[in-house]
Formats: sequence, C-alpha cells, structure tokens
Amino acid sequence: MEVNINSDLGESFGAWKMGDDPSILKIVRTANVACGFHAGDPLVMTDTVKLAVANDVSIGAHPSFLDIQGFGRRQIRMSSKELEATVAYQIGALQAIAAANGGRVTHVKAHGSLSNMASVEAEMAMAIGRAIKAVDPSLIFLVTAMTELSKAGRKLGLRTAEEIFADRTYTDDGNLTPRSQPNAMIHDGGTALANVRRMLEEQAIISQSGKRTPSRIDSICVHGDEPTAVAVAKTVREGLEAAQIRIVKLPDLKTMH
Amino acid sequence: MEVNINSDLGESFGAWKMGDDPSILKIVRTANVACGFHAGDPLVMTDTVKLAVANDVSIGAHPSFLDIQGFGRRQIRMSSKELEATVAYQIGALQAIAAANGGRVTHVKAHGSLSNMASVEAEMAMAIGRAIKAVDPSLIFLVTAMTELSKAGRKLGLRTAEEIFADRTYTDDGNLTPRSQPNAMIHDGGTALANVRRMLEEQAIISQSGKRTPSRIDSICVHGDEPTAVAVAKTVREGLEAAQIRIVKLPDLKTMH
Amino acid sequence: MEVNINSDLGESFGAWKMGDDPSILKIVRTANVACGFHAGDPLVMTDTVKLAVANDVSIGAHPSFLDIQGFGRRQIRMSSKELEATVAYQIGALQAIAAANGGRVTHVKAHGSLSNMASVEAEMAMAIGRAIKAVDPSLIFLVTAMTELSKAGRKLGLRTAEEIFADRTYTDDGNLTPRSQPNAMIHDGGTALANVRRMLEEQAIISQSGKRTPSRIDSICVHGDEPTAVAVAKTVREGLEAAQIRIVKLPDLKTMH
Amino acid sequence: MEVNINSDLGESFGAWKMGDDPSILKIVRTANVACGFHAGDPLVMTDTVKLAVANDVSIGAHPSFLDIQGFGRRQIRMSSKELEATVAYQIGALQAIAAANGGRVTHVKAHGSLSNMASVEAEMAMAIGRAIKAVDPSLIFLVTAMTELSKAGRKLGLRTAEEIFADRTYTDDGNLTPRSQPNAMIHDGGTALANVRRMLEEQAIISQSGKRTPSRIDSICVHGDEPTAVAVAKTVREGLEAAQIRIVKLPDLKTMH
Repeated sequence: MEVNINSDLGESFGAWKMGDDPSILKIVRTANVACGFHAGDPLVMTDTVKLAVANDVSIGAHPSFLDIQGFGRRQIRMSSKELEATVAYQIGALQAIAAANGGRVTHVKAHGSLSNMASVEAEMAMAIGRAIKAVDPSLIFLVTAMTELSKAGRKLGLRTAEEIFADRTYTDDGNLTPRSQPNAMIHDGGTALANVRRMLEEQAIISQSGKRTPSRIDSICVHGDEPTAVAVAKTVREGLEAAQIRIVKLPDLKTMH
Repeated sequence: MEVNINSDLGESFGAWKMGDDPSILKIVRTANVACGFHAGDPLVMTDTVKLAVANDVSIGAHPSFLDIQGFGRRQIRMSSKELEATVAYQIGALQAIAAANGGRVTHVKAHGSLSNMASVEAEMAMAIGRAIKAVDPSLIFLVTAMTELSKAGRKLGLRTAEEIFADRTYTDDGNLTPRSQPNAMIHDGGTALANVRRMLEEQAIISQSGKRTPSRIDSICVHGDEPTAVAVAKTVREGLEAAQIRIVKLPDLKTMH
Repeated sequence: MEVNINSDLGESFGAWKMGDDPSILKIVRTANVACGFHAGDPLVMTDTVKLAVANDVSIGAHPSFLDIQGFGRRQIRMSSKELEATVAYQIGALQAIAAANGGRVTHVKAHGSLSNMASVEAEMAMAIGRAIKAVDPSLIFLVTAMTELSKAGRKLGLRTAEEIFADRTYTDDGNLTPRSQPNAMIHDGGTALANVRRMLEEQAIISQSGKRTPSRIDSICVHGDEPTAVAVAKTVREGLEAAQIRIVKLPDLKTMH
Repeated sequence: MEVNINSDLGESFGAWKMGDDPSILKIVRTANVACGFHAGDPLVMTDTVKLAVANDVSIGAHPSFLDIQGFGRRQIRMSSKELEATVAYQIGALQAIAAANGGRVTHVKAHGSLSNMASVEAEMAMAIGRAIKAVDPSLIFLVTAMTELSKAGRKLGLRTAEEIFADRTYTDDGNLTPRSQPNAMIHDGGTALANVRRMLEEQAIISQSGKRTPSRIDSICVHGDEPTAVAVAKTVREGLEAAQIRIVKLPDLKTMH
C-alpha cells in the first residue's frame, strides 16, 4: 500500500517568515508552493524550489486569489475567465522558477478561499481545472476529497489526487469541521495517526461521530506552521511507514499513472 | 533584406486602458507583452496573447520591476538573485498564459527602468540574461542596440536581437536623446522612415548630428500609445516594404537561426 | 429649493488616466475622491484635491476594498473590525493630502462593491459608519438613498445625505436597475433631467414603471467617464438651475446643518 | 537630565508577525508605527495604536517607500512632488487610525531606504519635511542625528528630535557602521548602555575608535525584532534610569516645547 504526504510551503513573504519549511520537508514527499498571490515572492519561491529539489520532494503550484494582505483567505468574486487567467499565470510563474532551479512542477493545488469556494461551487472548480489543463494537461490536480474540485478534475480528464487532512476532524457530511468549533483541530500525533490509518484502510472519510463516507484517498495533507504541527506530521509519517505503507511522491503514486 | 518590427503591448491594467493594441498589431510582427509587474494583469495578458495569435505576431515577455504605480519607470535596486527570480517569474507567467491561449513565448525584452538601468550596468544585464537562459535557453533576448544588455546576451550565448527606435533620435555616443531634450521624439512618419532606412542600410546608429556608430540592427521598435505614434509606425512599415525590405517575425529572422 | 450634485473623481492611477475630471468639476459641487485602494495614488489624489479646491468643490473620501486590479468592483469579505480600519485609513490618507493642499474632507462615500454590499448588509453599513464617526463625527455620510447605508448613518447620528443617480433607472423596489438589463443607463440628457426633476419635486424615487418610493433626496450623482456622461451631467445641472433649484456644496445644504 | 527612547513597531503584515511589540512597549516611551507601505496593514495599525495607548507611549508615523515585498529597504527613485504626497498620505492614514482608537500622532520618522537616502540627499530630506509641515506643522520630525534630515527639519522650522542608536556602532565620520562590517551591531546590553551614557553626557556621537562628533541627542532608538534586542533595550532603559536620567515621551521632552 502507498500514499502521498503533502504540505503547503514557501509561505514566507519578503522580510516575513512563516512555517518551518526545512523541518516539514524532511517529512513530506510533495510541496505545494505559494506563487506570489497570497505569499511567496519570487525570491521565496526560488529558495523553496531549491529546498524541495534538495529534499527530493515533488513540486506543485499553490495558486490563490490576489490577496497578500489577507493571505488568500478572503473570499473574492471574479469571472471564470479572470479566474482561469489568474490560475494559469501563477502555475507558469512557478514553472519558470522551477525550471531555473533544477525542479519541475508536477501538480496544482488551490489555496485558501479559492479552494474553499471551489470545493462547493462547480463552476469555480471547473475554471481552475480548465486553467490547469490549458497550461499543461499532464499536471496532477490535487484536491480536497469529495468536493466539486475532485468532480471537476475527473470531468476534465485530469489526473486527480484526493487528499485528507491529518490534523483536522470531519463532520458527518464528509466536510472539515469548521475551525470555529471545538475539536476542529487535532494536536495529538497518536490521534492523528489512528484517524489517518483507519481512513486509509477503509478508503473513506470518517467523521468525529464515526460516520463513513467512501472516498479515494491519494494524499495526506500535513501542516508545518507550528511546532505541534510538525510533531503531528512526523508521528503520522513514521506510523504509516511502521505499518508498511510506502510514502511516495505525488507523481509516483500508481494511481497517477 | 529583412528586419523585424516590435512594439510594447498589453499595457492596460484592470479598468484602465492604454494604447491602441488592435491598430499596432496590424503593423508590427512582434509583441512585447507586459507581465503584470508594471502593467498587464492576467486578464489583459490573456486578451493580448489572443490578439497577437490572431494577428500572427510573435510573442515576447516584457518583464519589469514590481511597480504598478510607477509603470515600471521607477528605479528600484535589488540583489542579482532577486532580479533573476523576478524576471524568471514573469517569463513563466506569460508562457503559461500563452500556452493556455494557443501562443508561445519566443523572446524576452526588459521594460522601462529595468531596461534602462541594465543598459549601462553589466551585472544587471547579466542577471536578466541568466534568468532567460535558466528558464529556456532558446528564448531570444531582444535588447537595445549597443548596450550592456547586448553584451550580456552574447556573452551568455543567447540568441540576441538588437533594436533601434523609429520614433526617437540618437546622441553622438549612440544613446537615445533624453526625453527632456527637444527633438528627442520624432512625430513625423517621413523623417522616421528616412532615419530607419539609412540606419538599416549602413547597419549603424546615426545621431542627430550625423555621427555613425556601427551596430547590428535586427528589429525596429515602434509605439502605439498615441495617434501620431500609430501613424509613424504605419509609415515606417509601409516605406520599408516599398523598399523591398521584408518585415518578419523575430524568430523568423535569418540572424536568429 | 436646493440640491447637491456629486461625482466620483480622481480615479486615474499611475500612468493610466480615467475620466474627464476638469470637465466634470465645472458641473458638480462635490467630489468623491478615490483614496488609493481602487484608484487614485498619492499623486493623483494631490492633483484631484488641487483641482477641487480651484473649482470650489467640496471634497469627500471615496474608500474602497483594497482592489486596484478589480477597481474596487470585486466583492471581498472581511471582518467588521478590518473593514472599519480599512475605511478609517483611507479617510485619513485623503484628509492629510487635502490639508497639505489647501482643502478639507467634509464627507465620505463608499465606492463600488463596498457600497453595493453595504447597501443591503446592515453590519457592513454600520462598520463604515462607525469608522467615519470614530475618525471625525462631523463628516457627512453620503449614501445611496433607501439603503442600509442610510439607516446606519441615521442610527449612528451622522449627518447623512441621500443620493439618487441622474443616469440610471430604478426598479419598483427602489433599487437601481442592474447594468445587465436594457434601459439600466440613461444616455439622454433630457430624459435624465426630467427624471431628476420629478424625483426632486416628489421627494421620491420613481421607477421605470412609475412606482413612487418616498425618500429624502439631498444629492444627485453624475458620472464623467465618458463623453455622453459629461453631456448628461451638464444638461441636468443647467436644467435644474433653470428651474430655480440652487446647486450647492454638500456641507452647504440646509439639511446638513 | 531627560531623554526619549523610541522603537519601530507595528511591522507585522496580514498573517505575518514581526517583532515582540508587547515587550518593547514596556521599555520605550515612543512608537514609530508602520503605515502600510512597508508593513502594517490597517488592522495591524489599529492593534498597534491600541497597544501604544494602553502603554502610555507617544505615537509617530513611520512612512516608507511603497515596497511591501522589500520591507521598504529597496531604493526607489521618485519626484519630490510624489514623495511629498506619499509621505502625507501615510501620516494621514495613521492619524485617522489613531483618532479612531483614542490616540494621536505626535511625530514622524522616515523608515528604511527612505530614511537612509534622505539622510544624505538634501532635496529628499526637504520633501519629507515639507510633507510633515503641510499636514500638521506641530508634528515633531524624529531624525537620525547629524544628517540632511536634521538640517531639513530645522530649516523648515519643524520641532526636530535627533536620535542615536543603542545597538549600533558609529564610524569616525559620525555615520552608522554598515551592517556588512564586523562590530556594526552591539548585542551586549552593558556595552550599549555604556556607549549611550557617554554619548548623552558628552552630547556627541562617539565612534568605535573614540572620535567625538558633537550632536544634540534627544532620543535613543532601540529594536525589538530579536530576543537579544529586547534585552539590550531593557538594560539601556534601566541603566539610564539608575543614572537618574528621566525617560520621557517625545512630545514631553523640554527641548520639544
């Protein structure tokens, strides 16, 4: 059995630092790299790509609404045409930075509000998918499992990888428990590992109350922006390996061939 | 005999329009497309690429300092490493927009203060050239003739095309007459055509006083931001064709093979 | 009888021009000046304030979401606390530019999506009103008539001026006909004048079908971004004066004392 | 004897944090608050002003070039007119945020490259000073001692306060030792305190080699962006108080009356 582990990286900006990229890059096999619209200026992108290459981690674009001040977490409405152009622009920017630094972009994963809104709005999800396909149809579309994003990816014939979150809990309808609620986050590595293992074994999203929603699971998303997050990620990775689950880069997943 | 004609296009931004791109695209064979750092948001880039493709005009990236408010005309100092990343980012962004809209980026030309500063500062010129080479060594580097930019292009082994300006006059040292001086601009099509023809025949930059500075001339830059500019460009194009000079796309120039 | 006429001005940005401010400033008595978040960089703001002072026109801040690329027309969601800070910031920026150039800010009018969203969302309207009151409670709040904005202004005890649009038609529920529908815009000066005169006389918004919604009307908004707009504005102003209606600056309205 | 201690604060931006403002606010009496051009969005400005008010610390605007990505450390060239407008804009933005949160702006101190360039370029220094005077002539101009900034402040009749740095060393010509050189920074509280005390007693800048350059000294700048900086600042403050030197807010300095 095999699975990918991914994380959002390169989210520093100018003089400001965010996250502990060197530590998390020792745990994950795939990096979603900010492309300058919510974080990650060209210099940060360069350093992040170099670090990913040095750690033999596969690289993806992590496009966002244009919203540095809001870290891509503000809801912004625009036309599908503008959204497609916005996503294409960011993918290309990272492709060039990657090419210039010995790397290659192999997937795309939407960030923040762009991902959240497109998870429930089919037309937004299709616009993101169309942008990916138009730039390079061999790119993998990494999406939140069981959303409009995954439907759009399959409808467009993109190689689509579905992710679950190691440090979040789920509601009975298969969605993430909103951060405003208690128990939305998992801070304990053992709990996170147990959840992830059970979801992988059953190939289903399992809610806090125990409800199962069958879903393909290709990748596990972990975070690196606080010390407990890195510890949780490490426990999950080590626990999966101990259970004989191979942790592979996104394009190396058999399901992606 | 053959020569290219190029112009800076796609310099609208959001709700603001600049230039008469449809008119100038009927005259030139090569478009330098703004990449979002001084003008040209993703939507404008998309529309500009489509228009270029429809007019069978070759497409180049026109990177700039990050300076929307100053239209890339402010001098900004940054490290060579940051400059390389900044240029690579913009080339890639346009490459993706082009790929998504049936076009292909075949050259790069620096904009505004970035070009002006790098024309006289060797290290900046080399940084721009290194970025181009690292992203795609087959890209043509379109540069102001007789500058550090052309030296850097040749030193790096890039296909380097040198341009003169149809609507500007030159000083005895081979530089453009500063806009602050009288006679810096040529508003009369006949005068512009006569100047351009003589420089092409003699393969030299010829100053207002008549001084000759031998130079390769691959391309002629025209502008489209005011009615007289379009008229000047049209007169130059038609006059060159009447003189049996073929006007070709930048990558079609024999000197670029 | 008296009424104010206002217009949105200073909406150029950097190298890009928008609107014919000098012409429209000969028609209106009150200018809503862009504050740098959707248009109007510090230099444009300076020139606009000078022009307003020279034309003896009262000056207001025209705050927006931070959205240069979308001209403040994109819907952006943020917390009330952030919205208050955003509005206060822009008012202050213009106050200082005005003070430095012999002017004074006497009112505030929200721009684009900020105004549209707050017209129907009470909490957003209150946040804008609270920001105004916190910066300077003597500022007039210029609002679209019959909206949550006008309710918020009165609730907070702000001097509140209600405006109608000279070049737009209204639906039976008292709202503007959406631009997507035919007859949303009025391009004919005579029609605009007749509408405005009738609404002033009846102190009511009158829809295309003739339905009356009683409303205070303190000000008439005209636009200057196209030649017909200026002509419509001119006809309205001259027609009102011919009907013995005095056109006064916003703070000079008796209802504002 | 009395002196002021100031620090640059509110330099977080959106999701990114910088510095330990709560700790440094217990040490200084005066805060230079970033105004959104290099750091400090409207929300950060709001929180910083509230914190300053709660700590009874006087508030100043800390304007910068428009350069979020470069943290205001990039050299940017613009006209004096644009520079004046840029500085006025930022002062006003903070004045409004301050007014809305129970505070008041009593001084202005230029940030980063704006300060560094204006320290040696008289025209830039005068442009900053003219902006301050035009917005509010009662504002104190806090400047690096012995620079064009201090000359400009006095020439314009502004109340001008001169500062030295507690954690930096000086060259024989009275300038800061460039950060690229060893011994540019002082990381030891005892050394910093001894330096500051001697400079205060002799009212002179004293270089590493012991050279004295007489100068008025109104304020001492300390930093809070790293743990050692806070410790150095604390030692300096406590040492000065132990030596019976009163630490007062900038507008409370007798020399400012």
